[in-house]
Amino acid sequence: MKKSEFGFIGDIATLFGSLPHSGFEPIGDDCTVLPMGDEALVMTTDMLVEDIHFLRGASTAEEVGEKSLMVNISDVAAMGATPIATLLSIALPESAQGEWAEGFMRGYYEASKRENVALVGGDTTASRDRISINVVAIGRAPMTNIKRRSAAKVGDVIAVTGKLGISSKGLVDIMFGDLHTSAAKAHRRGHARTTEGAWLGGRNEVHAMMDISDGIASDIKHIMELSNVGATIELSHIPTDYDIRYATTGGEDYELLLTVEAAEFETVAKALMEATGTTLTAIGTITAEKELTWLDNGMPTDMEMRGFEHF
Amino acid sequence: MKKSEFGFIGDIATLFGSLPHSGFEPIGDDCTVLPMGDEALVMTTDMLVEDIHFLRGASTAEEVGEKSLMVNISDVAAMGATPIATLLSIALPESAQGEWAEGFMRGYYEASKRENVALVGGDTTASRDRISINVVAIGRAPMTNIKRRSAAKVGDVIAVTGKLGISSKGLVDIMFGDLHTSAAKAHRRGHARTTEGAWLGGRNEVHAMMDISDGIASDIKHIMELSNVGATIELSHIPTDYDIRYATTGGEDYELLLTVEAAEFETVAKALMEATGTTLTAIGTITAEKELTWLDNGMPTDMEMRGFEHF
Repeated sequence: MKKSEFGFIGDIATLFGSLPHSGFEPIGDDCTVLPMGDEALVMTTDMLVEDIHFLRGASTAEEVGEKSLMVNISDVAAMGATPIATLLSIALPESAQGEWAEGFMRGYYEASKRENVALVGGDTTASRDRISINVVAIGRAPMTNIKRRSAAKVGDVIAVTGKLGISSKGLVDIMFGDLHTSAAKAHRRGHARTTEGAWLGGRNEVHAMMDISDGIASDIKHIMELSNVGATIELSHIPTDYDIRYATTGGEDYELLLTVEAAEFETVAKALMEATGTTLTAIGTITAEKELTWLDNGMPTDMEMRGFEHF
Repeated sequence: MKKSEFGFIGDIATLFGSLPHSGFEPIGDDCTVLPMGDEALVMTTDMLVEDIHFLRGASTAEEVGEKSLMVNISDVAAMGATPIATLLSIALPESAQGEWAEGFMRGYYEASKRENVALVGGDTTASRDRISINVVAIGRAPMTNIKRRSAAKVGDVIAVTGKLGISSKGLVDIMFGDLHTSAAKAHRRGHARTTEGAWLGGRNEVHAMMDISDGIASDIKHIMELSNVGATIELSHIPTDYDIRYATTGGEDYELLLTVEAAEFETVAKALMEATGTTLTAIGTITAEKELTWLDNGMPTDMEMRGFEHF
C-alpha cells in the first residue's frame, strides 16, 4: 500500500503501525514483503471500479480483464520479483453477468496464461449497478533480489525501461472518441515488465525500483522521499514518441523506473537488452539536495509538472 | 475460492486448472494453501458490496469495518491456521468519504487489534455511488496443521463450535426493523473462531474443517463432496437458542464445522473447552453412503433443508 492512498482518513498507516507486523516489512512500496527464510513473498492489491477506472462503452470486457491482471503484476515486477499467482474478486450487476463476465474472464485468463500466473482464489458476488474488480498479485523472489523505493543512492543514474507516454496519449485519444489507435489500445490493455523486473531484481547494481503508474514527475518523488535524496531529470533524454507532457505527467505506462550505480549503468543496460530485448534509458541522476530539478537540454526549466492524481 | 462461486461463467476453476499452480494447492477450500517448506501460508479473499452485503441505514460504519475483517479471518481459522495480516481495498463514493470512512476504519482497526492481525497492504479509490470493500486475509501454520474439507473419514463425529442460528435470527430481526437485539448486532459484526481454529489445527484427531457461512445444511455438502462421503445429522443435538431452521439453513454464524475421530471426540471437546472456553458439540456422523440424512430424535425426517443462497 502506498501511504498516500489512505490520505482520505489521515494517517492510517501510522495507526496500524502500532499493531504487530507479523513478519511483514512496513508499508511504503509497490508491494508488501513477507520474508520467509531466504525467500520473500510479495503481495499487492488493486481495486478497479466501473465509471472510475474503465467505461463499459470504451473498453471491451477482454481488455478490462487483461488490464486488471497486468496493473497488479506490474507492481510485483517492480519489486524485482516474479509474479506467481493472483486472487480475483468481482462484483457483477445483472447486466454484466452473462457475456461481459465471460469476456472479462477470457481476457484475464489469456493474460494469466501469457504471464504464467495461477489463479488461486477469488470471490464473485452480485452488485446493484456497477462492476467492481479487485485483484491481488503474489510474487516470489530470493530475499536479496527485492528492490525497494528506499534504496536510491546519491550519484545513481535514474533510468526507465521502454518508452513513456503511450498510455496517456491513448487516454486522450479515447476522450476524443478515437478508440482504435494503438495508443488507445495500449491504454486499455495495460502492461507489465515482468521479465525485466525479475531480471533487474537479480542485479546488485540496481538500487531502487518502482513501476510508473502516475507518471515519472509524480513517481520519482516516492523514491526521493523514501530514499531521502533528490533528483535531476533531463527532459530531452526521456524516451517517448509523443508530447513530453504525456511522458512526464501521464500515468499508467507501467514501465520500470529505477536507479543504477552510475559506473555500471552501461553494462546493465546492455545486458538487459541482450536478455530481454528491452531498452534501458538513463534520464537523470540522484542528488543529495532533496529537490526535483528538471533540465531541458541542460538548462533548468521551471515548468510545473505533476503526475495525474488518481482521486 | 469455493468452486461454486464461479458458477456464473461455467467452470473457471477447470479453465485455470490448466495453468501451472506455482506451488499452490488446487482450489476447493476456505483458503488457498501455499506450502513453504514445513510451513504453510493460507490466503482468502472476500468482497462486500453496499446494498448486497450491507445497508448503510442498517449497519454502522464501525460494524461494517469489523465484519469485513471477521468474515475473512474466519476462513483462515477454518484451515487450522493463525491469521497474521490482511490487505484492504475500498471504493468510496463521495457520500462515504468523510465520517463513514473513518468509522469503517475504526471498526476495522479495533477488530484487527483484538485479533492481532497486521494491515500490510491496500488500495483506496473513488466510486460513483456505492461502497465496495475487498479484504484478503493471510494466515500461517505448520504444514501438518492445515485442515481441509476433503479429509473427513467414515465414522467421524461431525461437530460444531459454539451455538448456531444467532446470525440469521439477527438478519430476520433487522428485516423487521428491530435493529437493537443482540442477534441483530451479532449479525452485523461478524465472528471468527480464531483461537479455536488454530488450536484445532494442532490436533491430529480433527480431520476435515470449515467455517459455517451458508448454514450447515449447505456447508456439510462441501465436506461430503470433497471427502466423497455422506453424513447423518441429528437435529435435536444442534446447539441453538433459536428456531432450528435458523440453526440449520441460516448463514453467517462463522462457527467451525469439523469432523473428529469418533473415539477421540470427548477428549478433544474437553481439551478445547479447557484451552479456549468454547464448547464443541457432536451433531452427527460421517457415513459411507453419499447422502445427507437428517434425524429428529432418532427418526429420519424428510424436511427440505437448504442453505441460504446468496443472490
